[in-house]
Amino acid sequence: MHNLGQLAQIIKAELIGDPQALVQRARPFDLAGEGDITFAVNAAYRSRITQSPATAIIIAPPAEASNVNLLIAANPKLAYARAIQALHGKPYQPTGVSSDLIAGRGTAMGRDLSIHPRVTIGQDSVIGDRVTLHAGVVICDRCRIGDDTIIFPNVTVYDDSEIGSRVIIHAGTVIGADGFGFVPDEEGRKVKMLQMGRVRIEDDCEIGANCAIDRGGFGDTVIERGAKLDNLIQVGHNTEIGEDTVVVALTGFSGGTRVGRRCVIAGQVGTVHHISIGDGATVTAKAVVTKNVRAGARVGGMMPARDYKDWKRSQVLYFKLPEIVERLKRLEKAVRKMEADDN
Amino acid sequence: MHNLGQLAQIIKAELIGDPQALVQRARPFDLAGEGDITFAVNAAYRSRITQSPATAIIIAPPAEASNVNLLIAANPKLAYARAIQALHGKPYQPTGVSSDLIAGRGTAMGRDLSIHPRVTIGQDSVIGDRVTLHAGVVICDRCRIGDDTIIFPNVTVYDDSEIGSRVIIHAGTVIGADGFGFVPDEEGRKVKMLQMGRVRIEDDCEIGANCAIDRGGFGDTVIERGAKLDNLIQVGHNTEIGEDTVVVALTGFSGGTRVGRRCVIAGQVGTVHHISIGDGATVTAKAVVTKNVRAGARVGGMMPARDYKDWKRSQVLYFKLPEIVERLKRLEKAVRKMEADDN
Amino acid sequence: MHNLGQLAQIIKAELIGDPQALVQRARPFDLAGEGDITFAVNAAYRSRITQSPATAIIIAPPAEASNVNLLIAANPKLAYARAIQALHGKPYQPTGVSSDLIAGRGTAMGRDLSIHPRVTIGQDSVIGDRVTLHAGVVICDRCRIGDDTIIFPNVTVYDDSEIGSRVIIHAGTVIGADGFGFVPDEEGRKVKMLQMGRVRIEDDCEIGANCAIDRGGFGDTVIERGAKLDNLIQVGHNTEIGEDTVVVALTGFSGGTRVGRRCVIAGQVGTVHHISIGDGATVTAKAVVTKNVRAGARVGGMMPARDYKDWKRSQVLYFKLPEIVERLKRLEKAVRKMEADDN
Repeated sequence: MHNLGQLAQIIKAELIGDPQALVQRARPFDLAGEGDITFAVNAAYRSRITQSPATAIIIAPPAEASNVNLLIAANPKLAYARAIQALHGKPYQPTGVSSDLIAGRGTAMGRDLSIHPRVTIGQDSVIGDRVTLHAGVVICDRCRIGDDTIIFPNVTVYDDSEIGSRVIIHAGTVIGADGFGFVPDEEGRKVKMLQMGRVRIEDDCEIGANCAIDRGGFGDTVIERGAKLDNLIQVGHNTEIGEDTVVVALTGFSGGTRVGRRCVIAGQVGTVHHISIGDGATVTAKAVVTKNVRAGARVGGMMPARDYKDWKRSQVLYFKLPEIVERLKRLEKAVRKMEADDN
Repeated sequence: MHNLGQLAQIIKAELIGDPQALVQRARPFDLAGEGDITFAVNAAYRSRITQSPATAIIIAPPAEASNVNLLIAANPKLAYARAIQALHGKPYQPTGVSSDLIAGRGTAMGRDLSIHPRVTIGQDSVIGDRVTLHAGVVICDRCRIGDDTIIFPNVTVYDDSEIGSRVIIHAGTVIGADGFGFVPDEEGRKVKMLQMGRVRIEDDCEIGANCAIDRGGFGDTVIERGAKLDNLIQVGHNTEIGEDTVVVALTGFSGGTRVGRRCVIAGQVGTVHHISIGDGATVTAKAVVTKNVRAGARVGGMMPARDYKDWKRSQVLYFKLPEIVERLKRLEKAVRKMEADDN
Repeated sequence: MHNLGQLAQIIKAELIGDPQALVQRARPFDLAGEGDITFAVNAAYRSRITQSPATAIIIAPPAEASNVNLLIAANPKLAYARAIQALHGKPYQPTGVSSDLIAGRGTAMGRDLSIHPRVTIGQDSVIGDRVTLHAGVVICDRCRIGDDTIIFPNVTVYDDSEIGSRVIIHAGTVIGADGFGFVPDEEGRKVKMLQMGRVRIEDDCEIGANCAIDRGGFGDTVIERGAKLDNLIQVGHNTEIGEDTVVVALTGFSGGTRVGRRCVIAGQVGTVHHISIGDGATVTAKAVVTKNVRAGARVGGMMPARDYKDWKRSQVLYFKLPEIVERLKRLEKAVRKMEADDN
């Protein structure tokens, strides 16, 4: 529980109202009541703030007179995210190391840990302080897990992976499997390119569930500080994802992709080998990125769904575009001729 | 083993033939022999029923004279599915609770269980009767698992998830990981929106392998009664999937998608945040659904694969469509002018 | 460590230089130094071979005079892959069988095994010689795992699966879950088609992380000898993937797809039920294969990403193609009329 005076400071908002009023929960606008803080996500909600029974409402400037306590913030959603953290975030409490931990020779464990049952750690790994490892986590040899990192159940971390501090890895994700590198031999059989690099995940990253982040061929696959990956994402060998970039579910990065900082990569996107996407670029859903994208650009390419028959009609004509253009050319020629004849 | 008289009742078909004839297996048409029941999936197979050595064949109406025992059913595939169940489905036999079960304080276990080795359950969870949990399953705190539910190996169920009765969850699936919610702060760093909701999976659902079904932000992500999900499906926070809807592999639902009842969502489909898809709608493979879809509609949008050169040619012209339309306009103007001059 | 004389034989290249020179590492061109072998991947690198401090460089013919030791190979990348194997591949060393292995009745274990802790094997399975099973692997009943196969952590192998020799399966992958087969009943509820087939993975395959390969309905899902699958791939029931075919990440095969030998299936591809793709065909990224593809063909279909506004402009006109073609027809008619009038 916080009073609004404290909370305004924590969420970096300006309070117009009673600094002693107490809030104990953050709740969506339509569910918020007495003792709750909420936010008005858009003009429609804003027009209803005087009717809300919430104890406080976060809004964007300008301030206005109101019977409700208002918290004015340039970015109300950000202020709301901070309010949720302040009211609902639970301070870390170590649960200790399960007696059935299996850890190999040379592995060093930090302090104040929360190691659940059925965790397996290989040899010569280093586990930082206040790390949480859930049941079924397998960490192989020579890995490093930074302080305050949380790894959910059934995650696999292959040999030699390096994971920073305050990282969250959701269940089922695989870090450091071999990159996909094969060369056909004289008979067409595929010869494996040994994958000798590593995965490095920097501080403050969050990786969703059931992702696959492959180790580098030579050198490292890198997820830079603060990048956030959704679920079921494929990161090919030697790909680098820049700081604070977000990547939505089911996207796949081919080997050697370089994604800049603060990019937004939407869902089900694919990239071709070795292309690079500049800082701050946006790639919209389902696009296949086949060329470098410059910083700040917005690229897309997939058709939205339409009525099936409409789409089918256009799709048939799409494949007739060469013929359509031929017909257009013939017409242009005929018209030019007629125009010349007329003169 | 069943005689055809019994089986006709079970599969709700009309028997034309010997009610005492015995069948012990269901088999595909081309493999079916003496003692087998099969079905004629289309006219081509139907024309061959008199040559089949099968003991019985399920066909659609109308009935016909035949040397083979026929089972007439409005939906032969449905009747066949029921025949397979009747002949090959195994009644549940509890295998007991493995002595190495790890279960936390306050967790209540039902009766007649099949708990394989290496299962981990947290605190204050409730496991129903006749539940099967395979090796490597991790169920966290305060979960509920309904009666007769089967969870395959290495599935993770996060805190507070609710799973109904007769649900099947295939291996590697993750239920209840955090939704993907972040807000950039003043420096562009991503602040996590705490995900405080839950996942609720209702009775009779089946979830494929390696899916990821995120918990709600506030409120729940819901898979309604009887919905069936294939493998590698992403379900974002607060998405609701309606009763008896089927979803094919590699599809991703953004947060807050509402999918109606009895929809068919094909493979590799994507949806944009907060759109809704009406009851009975069909979305064809790979479409990106960017707007609401009305009940019963059929929407699509992805191009089928074509000869690479043909496609490339059309694809180049696709990006010239604005120019093509300009040329068309100029022509129309020229022709109108000539027509006017002629008059 | 090898001398160049030996290494030339191993990698099937022609040495121009000192057969006694020693190399101990393979390294990328720009990182290679004394004691290293590398390869010149293209003309740009080739022009720089005299400046490289590497001990040996693999190049394509023709040979040339150089101060560096050269290894001439028709396929330099293949020769390089072999050099990496020769210098960095580690001979198998059995680590033994962990004392906490749980294996059911009737399961037979081979010799010289590496069974890590927390492995679970069901009943009546057969594990070959020199097999490596990592922590968290669950192998169910009546499975066969061939010699020299490596299965990484948290992989699930369902009942009755057959896995060949020298197969590699990466972490989190699920082999043999039920295929996706349902029939709506009279009330629209989905009745499960029992999935009674198996999965068979032949020798020398490699399967990436977090894949899902479903068992057959009747009969088998088959991954033929030497096929290589990347991460997060969906293989539907009764699909067959031919020898030495490679499949890139996030691709999904519907049930009953037949993929020939030595095909290249790029990333995020989808296939429609029961189509077949001929030997040696290529399917480019993100295509949806809706019809049979003949041997050797190259098919594609997804638009590459473009500037968002350009793409939006074309995309709007795409849906106006029927109208554009109408306008074209009217023009053609008007022009024909005018031409006739002129004559």
